[in-house]
Amino acid sequence: MVKICIDCFGGDNSPEANVLGAVNALKNREDVYLILTGDEVKINECLKKYDYDKERIEVVHAGGVVSCNEKPTEAIRNKDTSLVKAIETVTGREDVAGFISLGSTGAVLVGAVLKVGRLKGVLRPAFCPILPTMKGGIVGICDSGANAECKPEYLVQFAIMGSKYLESAYGVKNPKVALLNIGTEEEKGDPMHVEAYKLLKSCDKINFAGNMESRDLLSGKFDLIVCDGFSGNVLLKATEGACLEVLKMLKQDIYSSLRNKIGGLFLKKALKKRKDFMDYRNYGGGVMLGTKKIVVKCHGNGNATSVEKCVDQIYMRDKGNMQSVIEEALNVKE
Amino acid sequence: MVKICIDCFGGDNSPEANVLGAVNALKNREDVYLILTGDEVKINECLKKYDYDKERIEVVHAGGVVSCNEKPTEAIRNKDTSLVKAIETVTGREDVAGFISLGSTGAVLVGAVLKVGRLKGVLRPAFCPILPTMKGGIVGICDSGANAECKPEYLVQFAIMGSKYLESAYGVKNPKVALLNIGTEEEKGDPMHVEAYKLLKSCDKINFAGNMESRDLLSGKFDLIVCDGFSGNVLLKATEGACLEVLKMLKQDIYSSLRNKIGGLFLKKALKKRKDFMDYRNYGGGVMLGTKKIVVKCHGNGNATSVEKCVDQIYMRDKGNMQSVIEEALNVKE
Repeated sequence: MVKICIDCFGGDNSPEANVLGAVNALKNREDVYLILTGDEVKINECLKKYDYDKERIEVVHAGGVVSCNEKPTEAIRNKDTSLVKAIETVTGREDVAGFISLGSTGAVLVGAVLKVGRLKGVLRPAFCPILPTMKGGIVGICDSGANAECKPEYLVQFAIMGSKYLESAYGVKNPKVALLNIGTEEEKGDPMHVEAYKLLKSCDKINFAGNMESRDLLSGKFDLIVCDGFSGNVLLKATEGACLEVLKMLKQDIYSSLRNKIGGLFLKKALKKRKDFMDYRNYGGGVMLGTKKIVVKCHGNGNATSVEKCVDQIYMRDKGNMQSVIEEALNVKE
Repeated sequence: MVKICIDCFGGDNSPEANVLGAVNALKNREDVYLILTGDEVKINECLKKYDYDKERIEVVHAGGVVSCNEKPTEAIRNKDTSLVKAIETVTGREDVAGFISLGSTGAVLVGAVLKVGRLKGVLRPAFCPILPTMKGGIVGICDSGANAECKPEYLVQFAIMGSKYLESAYGVKNPKVALLNIGTEEEKGDPMHVEAYKLLKSCDKINFAGNMESRDLLSGKFDLIVCDGFSGNVLLKATEGACLEVLKMLKQDIYSSLRNKIGGLFLKKALKKRKDFMDYRNYGGGVMLGTKKIVVKCHGNGNATSVEKCVDQIYMRDKGNMQSVIEEALNVKE
């Protein structure tokens, strides 16, 4: 049985989306056991609506919720929140593989780093969400927000951990790794990036392909982008934001005249497909790499499908022994 | 007479686009005088095709071109290139207001900082391109690549210079300034950003509106985004790249079936308008703020229209005494 904890509060559609996602996840796999944290009255109210295997769901009560406005380091000190209960569940119960949260990204990342703890040899755990590329594949961004400040040697570990993750979770063979930089030439960037380039180039555990400028993220040329958490966060959110804004503009254009509306009708199917393709909710959540237990941060406005996908992400990583694979990759001297 | 220098080589469409842009710019304004740098045989060949006021164009020969693969600091040492000749023209001739280049961004920025020199009181000149927003307005990103490493006090100057620029060149009243960060809360980011937030908040020369996450760049909520040059560069290129990729995808979708093609025909006009709206070539180039002479870096694949707009940018800034306005704003103690 793979035991997974779900923080049921903190998302825009919580707890409904979290609970429905949990119920659906139970239906998908017979060997999944779920622990839901948060206000038990509200969770049970949601659960009542569905038919599910009661033997494989457990509710752990917490009265409070971490809000996005709280300072993460302070937020994770409040023990009566659904997030902290989720963290305590994975740290306190050895047989729980990991947890999922739709709540405050800052608090989840800080909680993961400070409370869940690192695998042996990991300098800094990193956050690695996945985006779809124009070629139909995927690209990971590591780190995209857990470490605002980085040293060059962290980035080498991000590259190794991210490569192992893409190989085992997505079947990407020998992932092409690029360093996010402000130009493609070797000597570009500040001293941290210049040094990181050198270390990445000489690391034989990865398939390093050089610097990447942010405009190439979705091109499909690379499988994994390594970066400090600050610029990785800027990259991730700028790309998502721009894609959404362009689609929003097109929608406005389509509704602006009868002529355009007719065109929009003909294109409806294609546009819907494109929107789904770009909807991050269809790609589950971003995972933390390098933590002792598996932590998956799902988008704040994730829906039941996102939660279901996140359960699957932890399930697959647990089955694939991802944690040991990463630990081994970092600690074997070649 | 406003004298402006145009580096005629280094762009994807050089020298044709540069020369045609120059000729058109002469037609637009009677008090503009242009100095074109680069291979005089090739420039004169282009000029021959057009009818223009020969009294207001001058060609300064340089046999070489700076390529994008050269290390900027080395590239600007080669005196026989069209870029270095342009730099020498503005530094050596007091009556030349500034120069335009479509060539290597790195070399232009390094040349501007090291050779053109700074206005009095400027810690670091910064690169400030302008993008269109969803509300139909514009947003500036300062710095977006001239300074990969920054100190908090640089960012305060970027905010002051950028505000003055938006006010005088685009008529934006009391520009709303945001700090690019990985969250909206005051304490977000690395120590440099935390400190920059404090300084920006207490600066009474600007209208500071707090932190901005990169996904909000195009929202129109802010007029000027201040950032270190590394993350600003990531922001700019990620946004441009994502917009272009989405439009490319839609184009592919439209050509993928007869049904979609029909829809595309109905929407043709709207899509074209949207593409033009998002085409950075219609917004001229990014300007350097804080240099003694005006430096405008136009996109490498800029066309004649871009060059024409860049001439206009320098013309307007010169007429508005932008350099003195910035110098004054930085040096007046309040």
